[in-house]
Formats: sequence, C-alpha cells, structure tokens
Amino acid sequence: MKNLNNITTIAFDADDTLWINEHLFRITEQRFVDLLSEYVTDKTVIDKLYDAELRNLQHFGYGIKGFILSMIETAIELTNGEVKGCDLQKFIDWGKDQINHPVHLISGVEEVLNSLQGKYKLILITKGDLFDQESKIARSGLASLFNHIEIVSEKNKETYSSILLKYNINPIEFLMIGNSLKSDILPVLNIGGKAIYIPADTTWVHEAVSDSDIADKNYIELSSITKLIPNLEM
Amino acid sequence: MKNLNNITTIAFDADDTLWINEHLFRITEQRFVDLLSEYVTDKTVIDKLYDAELRNLQHFGYGIKGFILSMIETAIELTNGEVKGCDLQKFIDWGKDQINHPVHLISGVEEVLNSLQGKYKLILITKGDLFDQESKIARSGLASLFNHIEIVSEKNKETYSSILLKYNINPIEFLMIGNSLKSDILPVLNIGGKAIYIPADTTWVHEAVSDSDIADKNYIELSSITKLIPNLEM
Repeated sequence: MKNLNNITTIAFDADDTLWINEHLFRITEQRFVDLLSEYVTDKTVIDKLYDAELRNLQHFGYGIKGFILSMIETAIELTNGEVKGCDLQKFIDWGKDQINHPVHLISGVEEVLNSLQGKYKLILITKGDLFDQESKIARSGLASLFNHIEIVSEKNKETYSSILLKYNINPIEFLMIGNSLKSDILPVLNIGGKAIYIPADTTWVHEAVSDSDIADKNYIELSSITKLIPNLEM
Repeated sequence: MKNLNNITTIAFDADDTLWINEHLFRITEQRFVDLLSEYVTDKTVIDKLYDAELRNLQHFGYGIKGFILSMIETAIELTNGEVKGCDLQKFIDWGKDQINHPVHLISGVEEVLNSLQGKYKLILITKGDLFDQESKIARSGLASLFNHIEIVSEKNKETYSSILLKYNINPIEFLMIGNSLKSDILPVLNIGGKAIYIPADTTWVHEAVSDSDIADKNYIELSSITKLIPNLEM
C-alpha cells in the first residue's frame, strides 16, 4: 500500500461499513425460506430467489423494494402461480419491517468519524435505493459529519471518477473505505485512488470477487473500523 | 411576475416537463382496473389503489416499484387475499413494461434546451426513484445538455435551498420550470426564486394544490415549452 500521508479526502461506504444492513436481508430471506419450506427445499428457495434478484437488477436496481418484488416472483414461480395473495402480503409487510428497522451503527463508527472530522474532507458514498438510503442516513444521525453525501445506483470506475471530478479531488489524495471489494475497493484502485477494505460479518454473494481479481491489488485490510485511526497516523 | 432579465440558471423538472410519464401510469392503472372489474367497480379500484399509494409513500417513496407494490396490495385487499400469484405476476410484468418503455420527449424540448445551452446554467431536477430516473435520463439523450443533474426523493423548500447552496446560486437568479405547482412552482417561489408552470395533459392527483395555495402567487403559466424562449427574451 502506498502511504496514506497525502490523503485529503476520505470516503465511506454506508451499508455494512457504517451500519448493519445485509444481516437484515438474511433475516427476511430466512422468513421467506421458512414459509415456502412445505413446497420446496431451502436450497431451492435461496437459489431461485438469487436468480430472481439478478434477473431483476436490470429493471429494479438495488434495494429492498426490488428484493420484495423478487420474493413475490420467486414464490409465484415455485408454486406454479398457486400462492395466494394473503401469503404474498406477508413479504410486503416483512419488507416494510426491514425498511423501518432501526439503524444500528457498527461499533466505533461515531468515534472514528468524529475524530476525522475537520482533519479530512469526509464523503459518504452509498449505493442503492435513494428513498431508503436517505431514510437510513437521516436516522443514523451521522449526516452532519460528512462534507458531501452521494447516493448512487452503481459503484464503478465511472461513478468514482465523476464524484472526484465534481468535488475537484485528485485521485492520489482520495481514500475509500468499505466492505465490498467489488464496489468500494477495486474501482477506486483502478482510477488511482487508495482503499481500505473492512470485511463485514455478512456480505451479499453478488458483491463477491474472484481471487484473480484482487491478486496484486494494493489495498489495506482491517478487521474493524476502530483500527482506521492508527493506520492513518502511521 | 418579476422580469426574467437577471436569470442565470434555469432548472427543469423531467417527468411530464421534458418527457411523457404520468400517461404511462394511467395506462398501467387501466389494465389493473380491467383485471379487477369482475370483483369491484372501477371507481372502487381507483380509490383503493390511490389509498394504497398514499399509505405506502412513507415506506417506498415515489416511483414505479412502489406503484407495483401498491397494485399488489390493493388486489389482495379487494379479493380478501384470494387473488392468485399468477394474476399478481401480471402487475409486476406491467411494471417492467413501464420501466422499459421508450422515453418520449415532449415536442420542442430538444430545440429549447439546445437554444438555452451556453446562455444559462441548466439543471435537471427530478423527483423519484434513483434507478428509474437515471435510466430515463440516459435514454432521453438529454444528459449532456445539462450542467448538473439532481435526482431527489422529495421537492420541497429545503430541497431547492440545498441545491442552490451547493452550486452557489442566488435564488433571484434562479428559474424553475415544471408541470407541478406543488413540487416545481410553490417551493421555488417560497425561497425567492422564479417559476414557470407548464401544465401537462395528465397530472397525478397527489400533485394537485388548492386554489388558495396559489392565490397571489407570482408565476408565469405557459401552454407549451416552445413558448419559453420568447418569454425569456421579453
């Protein structure tokens, strides 16, 4: 890893970097699997749901509303259309539960952000549904700690280049921190920025990358966001 | 209306100002009404669907995904949960049709934007689902004509103030153009900006305002976007 001395801007991913998120999808998924267990095996449900999610990304993008619609499509498919509306209403209600679930910050997040504020320009860059992300940001209580907040539909090289251009940031001064190698780390390295990977307990399989994608890639991996300050001061 | 001589920035709403949108919701709604006509009257379906949309705005925000989920909930309610999955799949498919529908620009839009480009800073400010709006903007072919594009979850005074602050625009130099008195005109007038109202053929009832809300409000109403240039040059 190149040293971090010349960093002026630190950007953070939100879901599963600042607060717990994927875990809530897995809880909803388990309720879905349990409800369909009389028809098919758990593995079939999970596989078919993932197929539907991938198929629907092009229509619905990321986020909980698309997830609810994918659960509904999967249940219809797995029951040959026989599933009744009253069961499908449950999926919508679970989705609403998830949307309204309290935002649980990951341990140490507030202290780390407070400590960095004023020393670096701080940006929050999160991917997903605009309405859902805005609601989580507001409820997190963290919004005022960031200089800029960017909610994007996809995190690729072009997304990061466009944000850096917008705020007139040189990539060599830019550090991205997140839990997804695919969305937070690789595209930032590819445009000449720096990146710190902090794996989450649960990561959606869609965010996985192959070993060859990260071979020779120059990033730091930390076990917790609380290790960030000591690494910046090294 | 105060004169428009000192305007430096012109912002445009997108749905039903630059391209046709609400009409597509009404087509989908009519298919929905027709499918449920064996159970209940058309008026009941429309009223119940609107109730569901309003109830779900707090969970899902604006946009087609929330609309699909509201259709599903309404059909479940109106059939006492008996509606079958195979019928509900139709609503999802109609939603996908609508999402992928070609973007039809309103007549004159390209000419007007081309004529204004370079003379004014141009901003597109649109409310709704991030993924859906980005897709429509990309397919419209208009993105390169705007200096900035802002996709927001709600259009109120705070939204406009925040955008003007971000781009360092004085409200008295700012003109907003749109088809919704509630979202495009009143909040801009309320922060000291100027506004031109161009009614669309079809406007969602949720965007309606009362006569008392617009009494004494100082805005221009035009019958078509093609009338914009002559008004700016007056």
